[in-house]
Amino acid sequence: MKLTILFGGASFEHEISIVSAITIKEKLKSFNLSFIFCDGDHKFYLIDPKKMKATTFSSAEHKKMPELRLSNGGFIQKSLFGTTMHNNTILNLIHGGDGEDGTIASLLDFFDIKYIGPRKEASTFSYDKRYTKYLCSAIGVKSVAYEVYLKNEAANLGISMPVIVKPATLGSSIGVSIVKDESDLDYALDTAFEYDDAVLVEPFIKDVKEYNLAGYMAKGKIHFSIVEEPQKEEFLDFEKKYMDFSRSEQVNSAEIDEKLVNRLKSSFEKVYRGMFEGALIRCDFFVVNGEVLLNEINPIPGSMANYLFEDFEKVIVDLSDSLPDAKHVKVSYDYIDSISHAKGK
Amino acid sequence: MKLTILFGGASFEHEISIVSAITIKEKLKSFNLSFIFCDGDHKFYLIDPKKMKATTFSSAEHKKMPELRLSNGGFIQKSLFGTTMHNNTILNLIHGGDGEDGTIASLLDFFDIKYIGPRKEASTFSYDKRYTKYLCSAIGVKSVAYEVYLKNEAANLGISMPVIVKPATLGSSIGVSIVKDESDLDYALDTAFEYDDAVLVEPFIKDVKEYNLAGYMAKGKIHFSIVEEPQKEEFLDFEKKYMDFSRSEQVNSAEIDEKLVNRLKSSFEKVYRGMFEGALIRCDFFVVNGEVLLNEINPIPGSMANYLFEDFEKVIVDLSDSLPDAKHVKVSYDYIDSISHAKGK
Repeated sequence: MKLTILFGGASFEHEISIVSAITIKEKLKSFNLSFIFCDGDHKFYLIDPKKMKATTFSSAEHKKMPELRLSNGGFIQKSLFGTTMHNNTILNLIHGGDGEDGTIASLLDFFDIKYIGPRKEASTFSYDKRYTKYLCSAIGVKSVAYEVYLKNEAANLGISMPVIVKPATLGSSIGVSIVKDESDLDYALDTAFEYDDAVLVEPFIKDVKEYNLAGYMAKGKIHFSIVEEPQKEEFLDFEKKYMDFSRSEQVNSAEIDEKLVNRLKSSFEKVYRGMFEGALIRCDFFVVNGEVLLNEINPIPGSMANYLFEDFEKVIVDLSDSLPDAKHVKVSYDYIDSISHAKGK
Repeated sequence: MKLTILFGGASFEHEISIVSAITIKEKLKSFNLSFIFCDGDHKFYLIDPKKMKATTFSSAEHKKMPELRLSNGGFIQKSLFGTTMHNNTILNLIHGGDGEDGTIASLLDFFDIKYIGPRKEASTFSYDKRYTKYLCSAIGVKSVAYEVYLKNEAANLGISMPVIVKPATLGSSIGVSIVKDESDLDYALDTAFEYDDAVLVEPFIKDVKEYNLAGYMAKGKIHFSIVEEPQKEEFLDFEKKYMDFSRSEQVNSAEIDEKLVNRLKSSFEKVYRGMFEGALIRCDFFVVNGEVLLNEINPIPGSMANYLFEDFEKVIVDLSDSLPDAKHVKVSYDYIDSISHAKGK
């Protein structure tokens, strides 16, 4: 199968997108893969698959490779010898800003390029944790209590310690702190505000059970991964998450009963249907006092959560066969024509 | 002042965007205006201002004008004599799909072009009426009760007649019906489903008082238009709305007391702040039994609701001076460098 991995992006998660792409290359060995890199200046480059290693980008070696530009139907490569159109299905693997905030989705839809990844509305509701809360409340999925603070606004905390402080829009634990003592709150808020103008504060729940579940829609049915109980640490800092994005070994299912698995799947399905079609997402849940709470939606999980699926190549093939089309409205001039006609023009 | 009007778009509201642009041209007479048209195939053309009339587009005469393409910093025009960059501030005047759904916002942000118009998250929450309801509920602004129906789903109405049936994502009354008798419901739903896979049903409130209020943020403060009580008809059908988009005569303020005006402004401000910065929006309210309900957010109102402002040119100048910048994240390779270094590469 032909597939183009789109990675990079002008975001704080630029590097982990590179790591993710390198990992995916190893996991889709039987595919005919090509690689398009979006650099920090929003330029696109066609990357030689043999050069798919981290130092190609940190050394700016990619700038010597062919530059591409978006065009109706694909990415265009111009050279002295003519024009080549790269129009394979895209796997959007740009984590964080650009990729997960709806920008890349809009670009690909506008230029009529097929892609695996969240559509723009789905991106809005998953990229900003505030809007995930709005969604949960509207569709009846429980989530952790929260308060929102805006930059330059006095903080008047209504949640008791310990709390977790997160920038509204970043993934990969960037800017996240756990605060156990009131006196450390301001510093944690300042840290989070370095990355975002809006910050969420939530109760930090000790000894919470955490479960991750990935899935995607193919042929009208949601296909689930195994449920993983992620490694137990307070939370993963950026460096650990960074390594986490290169995971490629299949993990074992969490040891939980089928009833809980079904409750996780039911919450996942409520979130996914009518919103995330076209994407493989990972939902991270907490279980607190027997209650399932949605913690986070990862609409482009690190290395596509390949390690949660038995046959990852089949997952990508099936998903590619079920991608939603961008809606194409045929423009008409009926009213202008009828009015011009009435005016005798 | 230099300003580029971007209009057209591949949407059901393509024609009214053209009418809107022609009207704006008349209302911004002292400006140095240029015009970029997005056609139904998502191609961009630089339109000769002298040719800004409806038949230029219905006759496809625009195709003889210079084609432009998006590039970092502006729209590029290539000719035999070289390359011209068009990089004025853009006024996004594409109504409906493309313009109001976040696509154009994403494109302009990605390519680092300044623009007046809703940003992508604001577009998600105003374009789809379901998500406007989510927003209202989250920020504590009251709105009309509603039910959502999805295509191919059995309708089991919980709202009593009469009801109003609307496609979730269209403006300009396209696909909207008022249903007074249960037997007409299926036909109304079918009509709405022609335009969208999701449909909202709301109680149709007779003799409701309707008030429209526009506004925008400049220098950290919201500036409001007068409050208009729109002409009283059950609702405007497409043809009437079409004419409505060419309105250019200033209207009179609704005859309501200052207390109600302030309640409308307070609801407007809750909706606008932290979401619609950069845009001039019009909120349409209902007042029912003394209660203010938000009916709809128009993030790109027809001809920019120019008729609600005394000095429309000043409005656009002030708004242009207060546009939010796209956030530019500087990409770093710190982790890749430190890991490569540790590996001795």
